[in-house]
Amino acid sequence: MSQRYFLELSYDGTAYHGWQRQPNALSVQEVLEARMSKLLQAEVWLTGQGRTDTGVHALRSYAHFDLEEAVPDDLLFRLNHYLPHDIVVNRLFAVPAEAHARFTALSRSYEYHLHTRKDPFLEGRSCYVFYPLDLKAMQQAAHLLLDYRDFAVFSRTHTQVKTTLCELSEARFEVSDHRVVFHISANRFLRNMVRAVVGTLLEVGKGRRTPESLHALMNSKSRSDAGMSAPACGLYLTDVRYPDWVFGEVQHE
Amino acid sequence: MSQRYFLELSYDGTAYHGWQRQPNALSVQEVLEARMSKLLQAEVWLTGQGRTDTGVHALRSYAHFDLEEAVPDDLLFRLNHYLPHDIVVNRLFAVPAEAHARFTALSRSYEYHLHTRKDPFLEGRSCYVFYPLDLKAMQQAAHLLLDYRDFAVFSRTHTQVKTTLCELSEARFEVSDHRVVFHISANRFLRNMVRAVVGTLLEVGKGRRTPESLHALMNSKSRSDAGMSAPACGLYLTDVRYPDWVFGEVQHE
Repeated sequence: MSQRYFLELSYDGTAYHGWQRQPNALSVQEVLEARMSKLLQAEVWLTGQGRTDTGVHALRSYAHFDLEEAVPDDLLFRLNHYLPHDIVVNRLFAVPAEAHARFTALSRSYEYHLHTRKDPFLEGRSCYVFYPLDLKAMQQAAHLLLDYRDFAVFSRTHTQVKTTLCELSEARFEVSDHRVVFHISANRFLRNMVRAVVGTLLEVGKGRRTPESLHALMNSKSRSDAGMSAPACGLYLTDVRYPDWVFGEVQHE
Repeated sequence: MSQRYFLELSYDGTAYHGWQRQPNALSVQEVLEARMSKLLQAEVWLTGQGRTDTGVHALRSYAHFDLEEAVPDDLLFRLNHYLPHDIVVNRLFAVPAEAHARFTALSRSYEYHLHTRKDPFLEGRSCYVFYPLDLKAMQQAAHLLLDYRDFAVFSRTHTQVKTTLCELSEARFEVSDHRVVFHISANRFLRNMVRAVVGTLLEVGKGRRTPESLHALMNSKSRSDAGMSAPACGLYLTDVRYPDWVFGEVQHE
């Protein structure tokens, strides 16, 4: 009887072509599977909570795997020493066999980090916006998004996705000195959606669109009507929520 | 009649062999002088507040230069676009001719950043300590340093410095989750001093030295009795204080 495990991880996505394993490009999944398989002396196949794009970071993400034997107590410690500096596994815990990192997830949260004054310590970690931003208009526009469920206008055009409906629960900006963080949460996200949303809100911030124009935009459903995608380096997956039964005996941290 | 200017700058020191211009190695000073000279179409020679070592960062540092003509209004904006991402000039202002970035400085402040849990976003920005630390003992040892004036034991052995006396005004740790920041301020610092102090305090944290043993250490005055230097990547020059007359009409920010 094999046991299912969840791992909670963080990564700096700068060096990776996203989470998902793929030919000819290094992914977080590939590095993690390779190191875990070696340490555990068994083939480990990870199922992530979903994809993240090239260069996107994760403050907290989840993946699951099945293993015939119990994991050694010091696995987490040894794994983190064995992994490169930009990938960290924060927790590892046994879960019921029905728990699935992707399908059991209730919601995902992302942050998009912007900074409005050049800052040597935010390179690759936040998107530098060197033009003045109307943050009040951006906040207003962000709030309007909560009235909509169909995010087709922010979806990649050639995609096999069955539905473009998403239940947003949060869409707001937080400002602290020269740093601006956009918080967005939903049950699910379409590929590239957060960066397309942020790119569009930046156009509101520049005065190229009014907040009210988002009503028409959301109804257009055509990706070309929305703004450019904001750069990947500012995007962080910050949390994935699961029902309590997944964690079972595990203490929430 | 030339005018003297101060500039306040920040840099990520990872890519540089310190502040000071030198043959065969890239310094912050060299990059800044080259870009400023080109923009101003005049040779600009900078005098910094002091040196910083290879790989050391600055959140706030100062340098001065003299110029025959007035600086154009948009210099700061153009300069920051022209400088690489890891060097930023935050302010530029005219000062009295007697103001000297190094000799007029009243005090310097440094921070040393440690983290006690692997964190993908702190690579190159903080020193990762993977063994348990007795922070109470470290805090106690740091406090003891304030009783001393002669820091010869933390000074490079082959140095031309005339005196090893420093007036410390602050030496304390601040802990927030897995991040530990050591704050130290003094009228002056010896070369490599902060990293030698931190390396020694880390040995206290490991239990290899007692806080009280620092009394004997400070009196030994022999560098080999102190701990190893902590890595450069965790060290930040955070401020340089000047008398008010330097700033004159300039608003403090």
